Amino acid sequence: MKDLRTHLFLAVLVLASTPVSGVLPRPQQQTDSGDVFSLGEEFQFLAVGVHSTPMLQNAFDRYRAIIFQRRKPDGAAPALSTITGCDVNVTSDVQVKTLTTDESYELHVRAPRLFVRAATVFGALYALETFSQLVRSDLSIDGTVITDKPRFAYRGTMIDTSRHFYPVTSIKMHIDAMAYAKMNVLHWHIVDEISFPYESVVLPQMSLDGAFSPKHVYSIAAIREIVEYAMLRGVRVIPEFDTPGHVSRGWGSLGVLTQCYDVKTGAPTNFGALNPTLNQTYAVLSTLLAEVRDVFAPEAYIHVGGDEVPKECWQSNPQIASWLHEHPSVKDFAGLETYFEQRLLALLKAQGSSYIVWQEIFDNGVEILPDTVIEVWKGGHGGDQWLWQTEMAKVTGAGFKSVLSAPYYLNYIAYGADWINYYSIEPANFTGGAAAESNGLIAGLEACFWSEYIDATNLASRAWPRAAAVAERAWSAETVTNLTDAERRLHEWRCMLLTRGINAEPIGTCSVNAQRVGGPTLQQWCQYQVPGYGGYCAEEWDPVYSAPWDR
Amino acid sequence: MKDLRTHLFLAVLVLASTPVSGVLPRPQQQTDSGDVFSLGEEFQFLAVGVHSTPMLQNAFDRYRAIIFQRRKPDGAAPALSTITGCDVNVTSDVQVKTLTTDESYELHVRAPRLFVRAATVFGALYALETFSQLVRSDLSIDGTVITDKPRFAYRGTMIDTSRHFYPVTSIKMHIDAMAYAKMNVLHWHIVDEISFPYESVVLPQMSLDGAFSPKHVYSIAAIREIVEYAMLRGVRVIPEFDTPGHVSRGWGSLGVLTQCYDVKTGAPTNFGALNPTLNQTYAVLSTLLAEVRDVFAPEAYIHVGGDEVPKECWQSNPQIASWLHEHPSVKDFAGLETYFEQRLLALLKAQGSSYIVWQEIFDNGVEILPDTVIEVWKGGHGGDQWLWQTEMAKVTGAGFKSVLSAPYYLNYIAYGADWINYYSIEPANFTGGAAAESNGLIAGLEACFWSEYIDATNLASRAWPRAAAVAERAWSAETVTNLTDAERRLHEWRCMLLTRGINAEPIGTCSVNAQRVGGPTLQQWCQYQVPGYGGYCAEEWDPVYSAPWDR
Repeated sequence: MKDLRTHLFLAVLVLASTPVSGVLPRPQQQTDSGDVFSLGEEFQFLAVGVHSTPMLQNAFDRYRAIIFQRRKPDGAAPALSTITGCDVNVTSDVQVKTLTTDESYELHVRAPRLFVRAATVFGALYALETFSQLVRSDLSIDGTVITDKPRFAYRGTMIDTSRHFYPVTSIKMHIDAMAYAKMNVLHWHIVDEISFPYESVVLPQMSLDGAFSPKHVYSIAAIREIVEYAMLRGVRVIPEFDTPGHVSRGWGSLGVLTQCYDVKTGAPTNFGALNPTLNQTYAVLSTLLAEVRDVFAPEAYIHVGGDEVPKECWQSNPQIASWLHEHPSVKDFAGLETYFEQRLLALLKAQGSSYIVWQEIFDNGVEILPDTVIEVWKGGHGGDQWLWQTEMAKVTGAGFKSVLSAPYYLNYIAYGADWINYYSIEPANFTGGAAAESNGLIAGLEACFWSEYIDATNLASRAWPRAAAVAERAWSAETVTNLTDAERRLHEWRCMLLTRGINAEPIGTCSVNAQRVGGPTLQQWCQYQVPGYGGYCAEEWDPVYSAPWDR
Repeated sequence: MKDLRTHLFLAVLVLASTPVSGVLPRPQQQTDSGDVFSLGEEFQFLAVGVHSTPMLQNAFDRYRAIIFQRRKPDGAAPALSTITGCDVNVTSDVQVKTLTTDESYELHVRAPRLFVRAATVFGALYALETFSQLVRSDLSIDGTVITDKPRFAYRGTMIDTSRHFYPVTSIKMHIDAMAYAKMNVLHWHIVDEISFPYESVVLPQMSLDGAFSPKHVYSIAAIREIVEYAMLRGVRVIPEFDTPGHVSRGWGSLGVLTQCYDVKTGAPTNFGALNPTLNQTYAVLSTLLAEVRDVFAPEAYIHVGGDEVPKECWQSNPQIASWLHEHPSVKDFAGLETYFEQRLLALLKAQGSSYIVWQEIFDNGVEILPDTVIEVWKGGHGGDQWLWQTEMAKVTGAGFKSVLSAPYYLNYIAYGADWINYYSIEPANFTGGAAAESNGLIAGLEACFWSEYIDATNLASRAWPRAAAVAERAWSAETVTNLTDAERRLHEWRCMLLTRGINAEPIGTCSVNAQRVGGPTLQQWCQYQVPGYGGYCAEEWDPVYSAPWDR
């Protein structure tokens, strides 16, 4: 047992070093031991289970660098019990993440060696992330035992590279931030009407016609690089090729867009959605999506969109009218949409792909495979509920897995601490929500970043730390809702991102009251010195601080 | 005269190179000659008037670098009449900008040499900026004659370095962008309650106590560097030391803050505004502001705030109560505020400083010097008008110069093309506005960036290009209000900022319609290739494009 004076000394020492308000997202269980340790320079990770994979070794290198780069230049190692390493025991050899992968972990912070146990390498990655967040900048760390696992299996963000193009480096940086927030699915809305940057080898004309320029493309090699980069960080990359609407640039040469006609003059005008009546349409999709399946391997899911299908162009086209006449089983244009989806999904099934679709596919009663994931995206209010609440009840009531993005459209911005709006949405708050959750029918949540007003200049600052509010909602227990506690951790997590090279924006400003009431000084919060920013992360928290939601 | 085939060849050539939709802010008069020229590699600026100053030479170097760095690596010089240089004739030796400085210029784009005439070096700087915006990336330029001058003398932005700290490099970059928008006043709200980063030599304890950390300060040397940097770009730097409210950190050791008391128990609590009843208060202000006057020289104006003065603390303080009893001419706490301002402004007058104040000083009837500038900032609506309309009528009706910032608080953000909200505010739209403008009583406009949610991570992307909407309102004629034209120029100006290293955010996304109607291709708009961004500036403009305000 240490004597009291040592304890007091340690308390002062710790207070003067980097604060750690807690891990974000907050772990399921954490029990501190009251001890304080220090990492030794000799610190190394060691795989002690039977499964020492390159993925694990890569994570060891990454996190050792992250942890030790934060050390203050003048920080002499405090005289504490030293931790000389971390033993990591992974008990299974799962290498590909799915919706049923075990992501749980245990982390024992103790001397002389830390201990991590995880069923899969993916759980081990999260243990390392948690550990990295607990180490202060002077390399001291509190003894603790953490037992953790995510509430939801799918914790995603969506990026849109059609409306603006992101270079590969921006996407990698976004994946880094996702991993730091323990998010695990990058829904890559790679093409849309505005541009077609996917550089196909089998259909090269699509990006030649549809990319902003020959430089604004994602080659197959670049995509494979991104997929590999993400996989090493526990992030799946699910591509979206939206059909039959949201198509234009890139598709023109393939003869699959519907020719629209002026209803008064009968003259041809522009082009609309994919033409569901042409076999060529399915031939093109089959060729394209087979390649996509291969390029994004090992990911089995493809998102094939299905949202906002416009019917006017179909209705104006005489060839479609006569096709409908010849196919009386397809009763109308809604039926034509269903006909399209049915053939598309059959095609995907034949290729061995699973699929995610926007909610319209479900709403229209298209026959879908049991492992289909339905993404609920429609905003707005209807009756006494939000539309997403009604929709989630229907989708999960029908036994389908759902991903909820409707209340998490983070491309929308508002002045102030708008992360609170997202953080406060409880995703199981709908009729039958608790049962749906326990049956695994709420696959998870997704923070969407449509890119009308976002490109590489502001992706990082717009997305982070705001998306981490959704990350915590997707990972932590339903009871983790205290805003003051979340704000404190979100603030520190944002400071941490700056030290890791990600240009996350501030979430607020500091209170001036701390000095008056003898609370912690400004210098005791967020000591990270960020070269080039000078951003001080200048928030201050103390008992008299008036939080934005209390004003 | 050129033959027709040459003309056609040139037309095609020009269409394929960087588009130039027009200068931002739009000049007062521009008459194109129909000729197209090319800048030769030997191009140099030359001062031909009697006044060849270091400031002018510095601008020559800067703009030659800016113009030639944009040249495409593979762009062979087109076979056009070559411009070999630019003669710049400055007719007066004014070196310090004030509210009455002549900023006008003439720019003649013609071969073999361009010609610039300006009354002052400041007008010449704007001629060079205009010229740099007209040169395409292949170094071709249309012949034109531009006669230009600003509508308003004060075209400002306000930055706040108290709520978050900006490093000097961020501030310089902000000044660069201001100069590109022909803005000319940086209102530097350098200190406030949250932190006191101004590092005084005469009162060193203020930043020792009040800065976030010893690193988060602006030394006198750093400030002089910024002032010099700004002056070279035609930007005045006006510091604000807000009093008697908005003070806290940094002032504690000086014995000038009012001790507040619990009205029930009589116990001392925290500290409030400056105590107007102490001679020490004026001694401190005199010492501080004399230094500030010197550090920011040659600028004669100091902004001394005066907004949002809280009275509760004064009311709770028995020493102030007895002082009021001894000074019956000061009738109440409003009178006490006026008493403070009267003494402060007399002190400034004695030091030879001019002053800008927030509108409360005027509203409270404080006696002020004729050259005082009143900044109108209060938002909201009253009766059938915006409050700023009522206030502008009052301030200018009383014969005072005004700066309007109320409708230009650009720290507020909203989803979408919110620059339109600012662009659409006509500042002379108040009772007596036209007369006030013609009498010079609308000194100008100011785009404010309070920094609760801004630091170095997002200052550039939040401020630009949005603040350029205010810049055009402040510079161009009242009739320049076409949103489609403004959006096109704003988009290109933003792309230009990227090439100049400023991280300006996108203002929207492109339309897919251009390819269909035979309009310019995406590649013909905004060809700037921006290393590191990949940001394509992917907007597209064509006759069928549906602008956000038309949807």
